[in-house]
Amino acid sequence: MIQLIGIPGLPEIRPGDDLAAQTLGALTAAGERLRAGDVVVFTSKIVSKAEGRLVTLESITPSAFAIEWAAQFGKDPRHVEVVLREARRIVRMDHGVLVAETRHGFVCANAGVDASNARVDGELILLPEDSDVSARQLRTALTQASSLASDALAVVISDTFGRPWRGGQTNIAIGASGIQALHRYRGQSDPAGHTLRATSIAVIDELAAAAELVMGKLDRVPVAIVRGYDYPHFGPDEEDTGAAELVRQAGRDLFR
Amino acid sequence: MIQLIGIPGLPEIRPGDDLAAQTLGALTAAGERLRAGDVVVFTSKIVSKAEGRLVTLESITPSAFAIEWAAQFGKDPRHVEVVLREARRIVRMDHGVLVAETRHGFVCANAGVDASNARVDGELILLPEDSDVSARQLRTALTQASSLASDALAVVISDTFGRPWRGGQTNIAIGASGIQALHRYRGQSDPAGHTLRATSIAVIDELAAAAELVMGKLDRVPVAIVRGYDYPHFGPDEEDTGAAELVRQAGRDLFR
Repeated sequence: MIQLIGIPGLPEIRPGDDLAAQTLGALTAAGERLRAGDVVVFTSKIVSKAEGRLVTLESITPSAFAIEWAAQFGKDPRHVEVVLREARRIVRMDHGVLVAETRHGFVCANAGVDASNARVDGELILLPEDSDVSARQLRTALTQASSLASDALAVVISDTFGRPWRGGQTNIAIGASGIQALHRYRGQSDPAGHTLRATSIAVIDELAAAAELVMGKLDRVPVAIVRGYDYPHFGPDEEDTGAAELVRQAGRDLFR
Repeated sequence: MIQLIGIPGLPEIRPGDDLAAQTLGALTAAGERLRAGDVVVFTSKIVSKAEGRLVTLESITPSAFAIEWAAQFGKDPRHVEVVLREARRIVRMDHGVLVAETRHGFVCANAGVDASNARVDGELILLPEDSDVSARQLRTALTQASSLASDALAVVISDTFGRPWRGGQTNIAIGASGIQALHRYRGQSDPAGHTLRATSIAVIDELAAAAELVMGKLDRVPVAIVRGYDYPHFGPDEEDTGAAELVRQAGRDLFR
């Protein structure tokens, strides 16, 4: 059995805050503690806040292109400008929707720039600079402060993305540490003896989705623990490749 | 807290089997029973098997088009023919990958036709004819046999889909009953008072993803219970719209 445990009670996170310490404080207050084998899922929003990935609209001078696009759809041109600055490539720009590839290689609406759950009006929250690095730092801080072995925990950083063809959004992983992004079944056999040819399950995305069920979108439960999941570990000589593992190479992408 | 409980021990399902009865038998054998509020997640494979959605390759005469495409990539032309028959529209056909829209409106590799976890060689498993109808029937049978109120359970039917831009696959919902596909936050406010503008979380997809963590891909745990999730119900006068709710209308799809 797997348990999904939401951790409420974190204070409003501000730039420079020690997110690992705040999380452990909230855990203790909830009568809970981290155990070996736990996957700790953080929403990207609080990671961004702790890392100071915030921009105020009043500091932004929009380009002519941002002004032009914003005017067509009644958007704030400074917001559009921040989106363009966070984007490496525009994937679609239509119906007032701006789907962009971020410098991490993630494809999402508005390059992950969002005003919801910001602390004050006119503030935008950007994605973490490198959410795999953020996950690694959180994992190290959490294991050390909990006196657990350095490989005893996994950390996943989640964000809410839309997807083509299907309505609604789901939480997916934009950062990970201490866990393989993919559970690879290649070469394994099903009960009838058929070799499964090409199945790789993106388990960090499924963990992010599962955690959303106890987190919700209103930012009151920004951390969750997934307990009891025997996740794919890295071997001692393997690199901690994070969520970057899930970024599909351009040449293998049919949907550029 | 939410619990994810895998249900092993189902026998090999054959066409005409009573899947609800088999599931309840496996539950009883595991010392478990359904409770009000449970979401029961079935892999589409066993639903398809119970419904006889099986095709043997030897019964298929491939078209010229299927033969041509299959020859380019070393595939079985009869397999390709079955995929084409299950497809309403080819979305991409490149690098040996055939991404199709099914008649349900789902976009996936090979129109959901798959040989893995088939009982015998040369057998292909198709998606259920209408997986929302399947979910409704399963829900009715499970609630009646468990002496629960008719609205006490939700059923989700899951399948494993790839997605553009991101490597790996995840489980998503292709059928649902007794649960709203989307948790809509429209109009609600975050803690700072910002109205969340357009967030609708596809909770049935997240439930399918969460269930995969206890199911795996080798078909030995084809059913899971998600317990303790306060899912969005339908009102008494609302229609049970199922997973069809997540099929994006062509006019709103930037990725045709």
